[in-house]
Formats: sequence, structure tokens, C-alpha cells
Amino acid sequence: MIQNQGLGFSTQLAIATARARNVFGSKRPQLSLITDFGDGDEAVFAVKSAARFVNPRIEIIDICHNVPAFNVLIGAHRLKRNVALPTEPEGAVYVAVVDPGVGGSRDCIIVKTRTGKYLVGPDNGVLSLAFATEGIHRVVLIENRDLTLLDKAQSKTFHGRDVFAPVAAHILRGVPLREFGSDLDPGTIVKIAISTDSTATSRAGWIVDGDGFGVIRTNVPNHVPRQAIGRLVAFTLNGGQVDITDRARLVETFDDSKPGETVLVLSSTGCLDLAVNRGNALERFGINFDQITLDGLQPRLKVSVRFDN
Amino acid sequence: MIQNQGLGFSTQLAIATARARNVFGSKRPQLSLITDFGDGDEAVFAVKSAARFVNPRIEIIDICHNVPAFNVLIGAHRLKRNVALPTEPEGAVYVAVVDPGVGGSRDCIIVKTRTGKYLVGPDNGVLSLAFATEGIHRVVLIENRDLTLLDKAQSKTFHGRDVFAPVAAHILRGVPLREFGSDLDPGTIVKIAISTDSTATSRAGWIVDGDGFGVIRTNVPNHVPRQAIGRLVAFTLNGGQVDITDRARLVETFDDSKPGETVLVLSSTGCLDLAVNRGNALERFGINFDQITLDGLQPRLKVSVRFDN
Amino acid sequence: MIQNQGLGFSTQLAIATARARNVFGSKRPQLSLITDFGDGDEAVFAVKSAARFVNPRIEIIDICHNVPAFNVLIGAHRLKRNVALPTEPEGAVYVAVVDPGVGGSRDCIIVKTRTGKYLVGPDNGVLSLAFATEGIHRVVLIENRDLTLLDKAQSKTFHGRDVFAPVAAHILRGVPLREFGSDLDPGTIVKIAISTDSTATSRAGWIVDGDGFGVIRTNVPNHVPRQAIGRLVAFTLNGGQVDITDRARLVETFDDSKPGETVLVLSSTGCLDLAVNRGNALERFGINFDQITLDGLQPRLKVSVRFDN
Repeated sequence: MIQNQGLGFSTQLAIATARARNVFGSKRPQLSLITDFGDGDEAVFAVKSAARFVNPRIEIIDICHNVPAFNVLIGAHRLKRNVALPTEPEGAVYVAVVDPGVGGSRDCIIVKTRTGKYLVGPDNGVLSLAFATEGIHRVVLIENRDLTLLDKAQSKTFHGRDVFAPVAAHILRGVPLREFGSDLDPGTIVKIAISTDSTATSRAGWIVDGDGFGVIRTNVPNHVPRQAIGRLVAFTLNGGQVDITDRARLVETFDDSKPGETVLVLSSTGCLDLAVNRGNALERFGINFDQITLDGLQPRLKVSVRFDN
Repeated sequence: MIQNQGLGFSTQLAIATARARNVFGSKRPQLSLITDFGDGDEAVFAVKSAARFVNPRIEIIDICHNVPAFNVLIGAHRLKRNVALPTEPEGAVYVAVVDPGVGGSRDCIIVKTRTGKYLVGPDNGVLSLAFATEGIHRVVLIENRDLTLLDKAQSKTFHGRDVFAPVAAHILRGVPLREFGSDLDPGTIVKIAISTDSTATSRAGWIVDGDGFGVIRTNVPNHVPRQAIGRLVAFTLNGGQVDITDRARLVETFDDSKPGETVLVLSSTGCLDLAVNRGNALERFGINFDQITLDGLQPRLKVSVRFDN
Repeated sequence: MIQNQGLGFSTQLAIATARARNVFGSKRPQLSLITDFGDGDEAVFAVKSAARFVNPRIEIIDICHNVPAFNVLIGAHRLKRNVALPTEPEGAVYVAVVDPGVGGSRDCIIVKTRTGKYLVGPDNGVLSLAFATEGIHRVVLIENRDLTLLDKAQSKTFHGRDVFAPVAAHILRGVPLREFGSDLDPGTIVKIAISTDSTATSRAGWIVDGDGFGVIRTNVPNHVPRQAIGRLVAFTLNGGQVDITDRARLVETFDDSKPGETVLVLSSTGCLDLAVNRGNALERFGINFDQITLDGLQPRLKVSVRFDN
């Protein structure tokens, strides 16, 4: 139904768009924000106020604020997914505030990615899935108090407002990274240990998130054998108290399954989602967000899929 | 307390405002977005990222994202209410993503209204209450893949991001409608069958929405006999498992009733709301959002009010 | 870890920032909005649409919309906290819509603070904690219907949309306060009666809010004896059905306590928070938002802390 016109129109559009950006000069520097403050929590306003104070020209965009409290895995995964969108611009700055150790000894860092984006947050792993995907260009330790708003603060417990937001806003003003502090060896910063396995007939990976529809998100890439699509495949979930073996239909869209059917969807995220057509997979398999978490630096719940059953 | 000054001040203001728009040139093209992704869901970010990629000048405004999942009736009603606000500007573009059939065979369409607004979404009825109110000027089938971002996508299940948002952003760049695809006969697109009846002593219509305060929204216009205002009137709700006959006080504001009293309010929406003063009408009458839905193309719950009891 | 550079860099930055504001001229007039409409409620869109209609140049910023319905105390406290942020700009306008008496006889007012900010809302106390902190410069009764959108409205129950938003947007257009109506004696407007007591060994105040983490917020300033920090202190909560005596560790950050421990934190709000390290204090002490409310013009729940036990 939706077809290529074969006219090179998209190239023309790209040129026209680039021209529009220059002529109108109206693209504002972009700060995107993810936190675990909870939906609608007013603390988000304070973070944005701090950023606008430093740089009133910026546009502040919410990624989401309903990362489960202190859940570094889910925060890291949602940050990564959004930073990695092919539509995200070079030069964009991302602030992640999922920070159980705030006020303690963990560092505050800036990571510039190979893709020209900036990640600002605590050195606790929450930035790590994003920089694993984007590549690390440089890591800087935030040391220069003059580029924070700590001197305005009445407490030590709100680095989102007093450190990360003002630092991000200064980056968007063009302040060079060296002004913020000294370089860190990329090998020394905290990374979530996440990997996937792939054979001709199987995939293995981790449960990394869930959503409000009850979809369970994995980090297993959705490149699967063509002949398996449309068929029932076996999967297992295990870790912590969870030990499940079941079958799901491997589908490209929900329309290829029946209401109530368990499905593994080739998701818009680029990975496999475990879901129930018009139902709730989190409920069906008794999984809650407290289980989609880290044990040390490794996710708790492992997922594997076999295509040869 | 708030009175007209009789100075024609509002006319002067209108002129001054129009002038300000031209002088400052600072009004950004406006894309308003309604989805059933759930409050705070990060998928909203991906939709906005896609729109900004195509047109970085736009201002993106949230209508709401808590339309109950797949609930085309409630999505259609909330879209209509907001598109119909007398303060909404000509040329504004609205994207509605309530789309249980995404990836399946339903069409993607653009409706230009007689009021000069643009509605973009699936052809499943979700746009239909808005274009019924605003009038249809033209309907275009989205066919030109070059004006979408489908080629960047890794799945078929996210038309909000890959089709509707980029199409809306292109409209706001001034791309003519003919570039998107061929015209459709307005008679052939999907429409929710919603109507109201009115006699001297009664009104009948449908339950079309509820809100977080527990207010039940109807599509019955709030033009009622003056002498009925302030009095108790009889009403019925029925459809599905619901069959209720009760009485409510017909009031202009909550202050005209007692706490705990069931009221029919001449609502700010232009229609009658069924509510409980400082209470929850959804709970009182045992109605949940799953019942405020379509059976085929007709709402499930009928409401009628009599003024002559 | 984060240190002063001793270079006067922040002064240079302040100058550079001020210059940037002038050169780019891109700071948009700022309207910040707090309501009890509920997270994601589409009525927020109507309020914003009304404001943009009057003044399309403004930037509209959400404070929060999840003030518990009709809870004037919590609305007033959250407004105050955010207006009082040291990063909030002079000239900013704040609209508060927590308004159980809408459509009734309470007045609509504008308060200009001594700090050059504008508060717009009902005269029911919801603005009063903010103007108590910021100081009152002037109070104006909203009387001029031409500066509202009441003539476009189909009901009397939506002053957020029809009065407060358009009035705020007109203020941001530079309309002088005298155009809106007559001056009111600041002594005559409604004020929440909130006070704190302090002795060498104790503090007393009120419970004024809670958050999504289950933190209980007090209005007791976090200036406490240094020697008490790190120690267990006795506290009481009482009022309504609540009568609790317990102990908590007085800490600067959560890291100074153990998981599960009850703490009084020197909070980023400038006041003491009662919390549970990685737990939920609202649940532990059986307090819900319905109890964090006003009885008349006084908060219901009193808190006191002793440092000498």
C-alpha cells in the first residue's frame, strides 16, 4: 500500500530539510531527559528549571520518568533504545537520573559517543547500554563545581538538578568538555554485563524491560530464520524465582496471531518482544518490574528461544 | 464578578496578537499527538523524534497518551474534543495513534478538515468523530513511502513513528497533499456511528469517555430546557451488562449540588457529564473503560435523560 | 570530587549567558502550570490551547498535574517549592488550577510577588504558600471579561482554560496588571495557616506533601544541630486519626543509612523529609494523601522532632 515512488524524492527532501534548518535557524539545542522520579513528579520541573537557567535556548524533551525507582537496568535500556533511534540528531545531549547512590561516592560523568551524542549521568551503569551501542569517543569526570549549581543547593541529594542538568545545558552552550574535568579511561567506568548468544537454531539473551501493555522486552536481536516466522517456537525464562518453559508464535505483527495467543514479535525496538495478543505477558508469566533488575552488573532474567522444535 | 468592559478591547487585542505573530514570526508549526501508549511510555519519544527529524521547527504538543489500549471510541472522542476547541489554530496537524490493526491491512490516511486542520492516522474510525465535527475537505491515502520513515524501521508494527509522525511533519513543512498519495472518496472511510436524539422532554445519546475524576462523558449536547436546570431528572444507562435507571440533579456547576449527589453537569466539553459531586460516577455505577467501547462501529453504552418526571 | 576552580568562571559564565539571551533573543516567555487534573488528562491540552491562542510565543512548562483532586494544601506546597527554585526567572508566570469551588463565588486573582513573578489562580489558598515565601508586591482581582475567554466557553466550570490560562498569556504579552481589574488588599486574600516552631532541641511543623517514592514532606526547615546528624532522633506525627511516636536517623543523604531504616533527610527541598531508605514511608506509617490536607485553613497532620533523646 505504501510504496517507493522511485523519484529520489527523499534525497530532495533531505536537502530541503537541511536548507530549512539553516535558513530558519530555528532548531533549538536539544536536551532529552530520563529519570525514575515517577510520572508527573514535580521534581522533573526543578531539573528542567536548572537546565533553562544555564541555557535558556534549549528545548527539553522527556524520554520517560517512569523507570521503576532505582532500576538501573531498565533505565539503561530505555536510554539506549532512544539514543539509538536513527532519527536522533548529532549533538543531542541526554541526561539519565536513575541514581540510588546519589550523594555517595559514585562519580558523575559525561560520555561523548562516536555518533556525536553526549550522555550525562552517574557512573553506575545507567549510561552503559547506550554507549555500548553508540561507541565511546571520550569520557570526562565532572569535577568543576563552577559548571554545576551545587552552590545554590540546600542538600546533597539532588544531582539531577544540581549537577547533571546544568552540565548538560553548558555542553549545549558549547562549553568544551575539558572545562568540566579530567578525562577518564573508558575501560574503568561501570558497564552492565549484557550479551546475546546465537546459533543456527537458537537465540539467548536477557529480559531488559517491560511496558504498560504488559509486553516483556528482551535484548535478543530480531534477526531470526525466515522459515521460523509464523510458527510456534519454544522459549524459556529463568533467573531468581522464575523458571518458565513455554511456546510462543513468532510473528512480524500482532495481526499474524490470534487474540490471547503468546507471541514473540519482531519488535519495532529491533529486538524480540514476548507478548500476548491483546493481553498482558507480564501478568501471564507472573513477572514484575522488581524482577527485571540487575544482580551485580548482570540482568537477573535470562531468555532463550529455540527454532527447531 | 468578571465583566465586559464594553471597550472593544478584545478586538484591539486580536489585532495586536495577529501583529505580534507576524512581527516576531515565532509561532512554530504545531503537531498535536494522542496515543494509547500509556502515560509516560517512552515510545512517545520515538514518535516525536521521527517528527523532529523530518521537520526540526515544529512544536509537538501532547493531547494525552492514556487512551485505554486499543480503545478507538475513547481515542476518537478525545481527539474530537481537542481538535474542536475554539482556540485551536488553522493549519494545525493532529496525529492519532490508537491502532489495534497496525501492520495489518487497514489504510493510513490524511483528512483535511473544512476548518483547515489536518488529521493523520489509521483509517479505523479514530479520526472520524473529529472530521464529523469539523467537516471533511479532502481525504488522502498515504502511499508515498518516501514521505515516511519505513525504510529506517526494523519492524512493521510502529506506524506512529514510521508513518504518521513523519507524514505530519512533512505536512507542516508545506508538502502538498497530492505528494502523499491518491484522493479517497470521503464516503468510503471508516466512521463511528454516533448520533443523538432530542425531544422537548428528553435527550438520548452515548457514553463516549470517562476521566480520572470518575466523570462519565456523554455525547448529549448540553442545550437543555432552562426550567429543568437545578431539578432532579431521570436517566438510564444501558448496553452490554449495564442496565441502570436512576436520577441526577441537572446543574451548571458542581457548586449547585451537594457533596455525594449524582449530577448531570452542563460540561465545559459542550456535552452533558454524569458525575458525583466530589465523588466518582464510574465507581458508583460500576462502569469501567472496557465497557466504554465500540461494538462494531457503534458505542456499547446508551444514555437517555428525561426532563418531565 | 566536584571542586571550585577558583577562577571566577561562574561569573564569566553568568555574563556570557546574559549576553546569549540578548543576542539570540530566543528565550520565550514562560508559563508554568500546576493542576489536579490527573496525569495525562487531556484537559491540560485545552488549558494550553487557550494560552497559546492568546499568546503564541509562550513556552508552557508542566510543574505537575497529579496534585490529588481538590487538595489545596498539596497544590499550594508544590507550587511554592517550584516558584521558589533559585533557578526560576523573573517575569515567569505560574498558573495553579486546584479549584474545588470553580464556578462558585470564590475570586480569581493575580499576585505579583516581590521577586517579580506572577501567580494566577483561584483565591482559595492555593497561591498562598508561594506568595508567603516570595512576598506580595500587588494583588489584582480578575474582573475584565475581555481578557478572558469566557465568551467562547459553553460552561461555567473550567476557569483554568477560560480565565487563568488566557490571563497568564496576556500578562506574558505585557498587558499591564491594571487592565485585568482592581487592586485587592493583600490582607484580605485567603492564606493557608502554616508555621514552624524551633527550639535548641526541637522542631515542629506540618506534613505538607508526599511523593511517588513514599517520601513524606514536612515544612520543617533543614537547619538542624550539626551534632544530631547521623544520630537517631525521636519524632511524632499526629492529627486526624494519626498518632505516631517513633525514631528516625537524621541524615544528609540516603547513603548514610541502611536499607529499610526510617530516616529524616535534609532534603533538596530545603526542608526535612521523612522517608525509608529504599522503602516507602507513607506505607510504613499508614498515611495517605487524603490525610495530607487542610482542616479549614490549617494542615491536618502535625510533625515534631526532638534532638535530645
